[in-house]
Amino acid sequence: MTSDFRSAGHDAVELLADYLDGLPARSVWTPMPEAARGALLDAPLPERGTELTTLVKTVGETVLPYPMGNGHPRFFGWVNAAPAPAGVLGALAGAAMNPSSAGGDHADVHLERTVVRWLAELVGFPHPPGGGLLTSGASMATIVALGAARNRAAARLGVDVRQDGVAALPPLVGYVSAETHSCVRKAAELLGIGSRNLKVVATDAEGRLDPAALRSQLDADRAAGLVPFLVVGSAGTVNTGAIDDLAALADVCERSAEGIWFHVDGAYGAFGRLDPVSAPRYAGLERADSLALDPHKWLGVPVDCGCVLVRDAEQLRGTFSLVPAYLRDEDAGSLGWFSEYGIEQTRPFRSLKVWATIAAAGREGIVRDISRCCTLARTLGQLVEQEPDLELLAPVETSIVAFRYRPAGERALSEERLQQVNAALAVAVQQRGRAFVTGTVLAGHEAVRACLLNAATTEDDLRILLDEVLAAGAALGTEL
Amino acid sequence: MTSDFRSAGHDAVELLADYLDGLPARSVWTPMPEAARGALLDAPLPERGTELTTLVKTVGETVLPYPMGNGHPRFFGWVNAAPAPAGVLGALAGAAMNPSSAGGDHADVHLERTVVRWLAELVGFPHPPGGGLLTSGASMATIVALGAARNRAAARLGVDVRQDGVAALPPLVGYVSAETHSCVRKAAELLGIGSRNLKVVATDAEGRLDPAALRSQLDADRAAGLVPFLVVGSAGTVNTGAIDDLAALADVCERSAEGIWFHVDGAYGAFGRLDPVSAPRYAGLERADSLALDPHKWLGVPVDCGCVLVRDAEQLRGTFSLVPAYLRDEDAGSLGWFSEYGIEQTRPFRSLKVWATIAAAGREGIVRDISRCCTLARTLGQLVEQEPDLELLAPVETSIVAFRYRPAGERALSEERLQQVNAALAVAVQQRGRAFVTGTVLAGHEAVRACLLNAATTEDDLRILLDEVLAAGAALGTEL
Ligand SMILES: Cc1ncc(COP(=O)(O)O)c(C=O)c1O
Ligand SMILES: Cc1ncc(COP(=O)(O)O)c(C=O)c1O
Repeated sequence: MTSDFRSAGHDAVELLADYLDGLPARSVWTPMPEAARGALLDAPLPERGTELTTLVKTVGETVLPYPMGNGHPRFFGWVNAAPAPAGVLGALAGAAMNPSSAGGDHADVHLERTVVRWLAELVGFPHPPGGGLLTSGASMATIVALGAARNRAAARLGVDVRQDGVAALPPLVGYVSAETHSCVRKAAELLGIGSRNLKVVATDAEGRLDPAALRSQLDADRAAGLVPFLVVGSAGTVNTGAIDDLAALADVCERSAEGIWFHVDGAYGAFGRLDPVSAPRYAGLERADSLALDPHKWLGVPVDCGCVLVRDAEQLRGTFSLVPAYLRDEDAGSLGWFSEYGIEQTRPFRSLKVWATIAAAGREGIVRDISRCCTLARTLGQLVEQEPDLELLAPVETSIVAFRYRPAGERALSEERLQQVNAALAVAVQQRGRAFVTGTVLAGHEAVRACLLNAATTEDDLRILLDEVLAAGAALGTEL
Repeated sequence: MTSDFRSAGHDAVELLADYLDGLPARSVWTPMPEAARGALLDAPLPERGTELTTLVKTVGETVLPYPMGNGHPRFFGWVNAAPAPAGVLGALAGAAMNPSSAGGDHADVHLERTVVRWLAELVGFPHPPGGGLLTSGASMATIVALGAARNRAAARLGVDVRQDGVAALPPLVGYVSAETHSCVRKAAELLGIGSRNLKVVATDAEGRLDPAALRSQLDADRAAGLVPFLVVGSAGTVNTGAIDDLAALADVCERSAEGIWFHVDGAYGAFGRLDPVSAPRYAGLERADSLALDPHKWLGVPVDCGCVLVRDAEQLRGTFSLVPAYLRDEDAGSLGWFSEYGIEQTRPFRSLKVWATIAAAGREGIVRDISRCCTLARTLGQLVEQEPDLELLAPVETSIVAFRYRPAGERALSEERLQQVNAALAVAVQQRGRAFVTGTVLAGHEAVRACLLNAATTEDDLRILLDEVLAAGAALGTEL
């Protein structure tokens, strides 16, 4: 079996190295031909086994030709990075060792403590022992953080919410903005808080949660007998990369009689703090009670890898620790199992991907790559502004550029037609195959957004992107 | 960068193939020397980058020598399998492609639908379109399933729990046994149900939830004004591998006026249904509303990979779908995004590991390996029974053997000494390095348990295990 592994492994490395080398020259994304999709979707459960070398070939023929498109230097969709080659090898070695990083004395457990510390250091967040762990992504990191927030609020109210449930609590309310990522609402729903108890606070013109509006909403809610327990700030919103005034939000929480938990969503943007130009905007991030990060975004750690950091490790352990007889481990040391700090019991060796990714680049390389993305984004913003047929819809704060097609002069379109054209624009660009952006809605405007996460992207790539948007927009403007 | 990837990739394959080849000849597990642990734990954030080939060497020197131990044919701890070599290559290719299997038209998304169908077929569970997805493990699968159960109960009571939260609900109660895995309680706590609302129903002598006791508990709770909403059955408990009377539990749920949700935890044991001897005990599994599986356990898919299956796909979508503007995808087709059916937004390419693992073995190979583990477990049970100094503590129903050291004759120990010795036994065996078992408590008895998941284990390995237990037990009997 393992001799089969050796030769098939070498085949796989050749196949994947060719694939990665070949990416820039191919289409960013192409819709799958119906036959290829059907071959995957309709495949029957195989009755007999297959040699590994044959399986590698099959992957090369039926799977590799149909990627999502991230990895290509002109993929600017959502917040999906190209994989760091070192992280890919980390994933390989982690899978071969196959530990459960739950607890005990093996390399993976210790390495996770180290990389969580490194991540905290990179973004400038305090890191007490046990103050964080890797998760499958920021959605999970957010659930872990908000679970701790809910349970701390309950404890202050004298309620054992683990035992008695949310029904034993007075109405807890949290505060977000319209630009807060949907994973926060999903977390509130899951935790039994209810989405109506997440108050949506007004944002300013740049998409930042307005601290003054927050303060008046808090006053009103207190007067109505509600119990504020959570404020969520964004260190980089998904739509425009806006960074909330984190210091002002921290002030509100620290001064609150309720001891409001301050959570910062840094899934997309926290690593942007490494860009010297952007860094000052992150002031206050280090004062959060919890921070959600996503190494599988800007750092390029292969999916999946999120991270939750907390100021007070005991808040996690008090929320999640549950050690039945079959998991006791007298030797685990005072920090105990990772599963006492979060939700997952069996946990993969994510830390090796993070370790390899960070070690390959070094802090220096990470700073260089992040800064390059921010610079490219500012350049793209300028190119958009210089182009008469495009309209920049938000200032470029980190590495996201949000804009829309708005032809000038005699080709000008009514606002209704603009909405139609821009609503269809992202998919039209995607289908042309030369660049990939995704759509959104900003202050009621249908828009496209380009998220720059790949340091291999060039200025030429930015020009190609805009040419594609203009061409797709022009075609839609006459077609629709 | 990718030429570096190519040569470092080949180095990694050599290193890992040697590692896997060498496993049986080495210690199952060894505590890490303090210096080696410190080197990992205290490593500073690296300032400069490092070549990939150097990183591979570093992994070989500092990480590979200190595995958890699963992978070795004499690792019998918890429920941790050896990695299927095909799955390891699947993890490699999945990381290199690095999609987010959230939605859209790329190979990974379609492949996930296929392997979820395959998994359902393997365990004999119905599979409507959209009726399941891969998760990071069974803990997450359980949260997804119990979230859907909570929300269905709320909907029947006319409450929009997503919006209004658990506080808007009457007291919902669920039913488990003392042998139910702790992840169910963690899920109930997270969902705001409260652990006191999980009633622990009596088990019979074999560790199976007693349907008669369940019925009387239900009557009492209804009379007290509580609203039953959930029964959890185990298709293989973690302690002894006991399989609840699933058909009887399904009867109770189907006949309930409340429409009680029947969840089956098949994380460890559901694939045991493929063993012809064990298969009949699983009758009723196919009648569950939801089933949690763990391909990263018995199938050997590298961690992480769990799976949740549901009878009614709309229950998942109704619980989790939330599609903000930046995630809209008109082309996603009627099934929508995977993130509408669960918690994760960015989702890794887990399906490739599952596909490769199943394709390499074929149904035939999986049945052979699973049956072999069950046969080995029955043999181990017999060996324990034949050994005067050991006591079998539960019938061998699947592939877990729970027993304790109880020396006979003149070396006999008091019950108190037996408890002391057996409480220390698992760690003592682990530290000897030749076999790995973990401990638990069964009906008040300190015990060890061996979980057989590795088809490479031989009968000689079983004898070595028992020799180690006897030697460690004898040493503890004189030392403690
Ligand atoms: C700002 C922000 N928060 C949270 C998330 C959710 O992260 P994940 O997809 O890793 O769960 C995202 C994903 O794009 C994001 O951009
Ligand atoms: C019966 C049972 N259920 C659930 C779980 C939890 O699964 P996971 O560790 O994948 O979250 C386990 C883990 O051992 C288990 O044995």
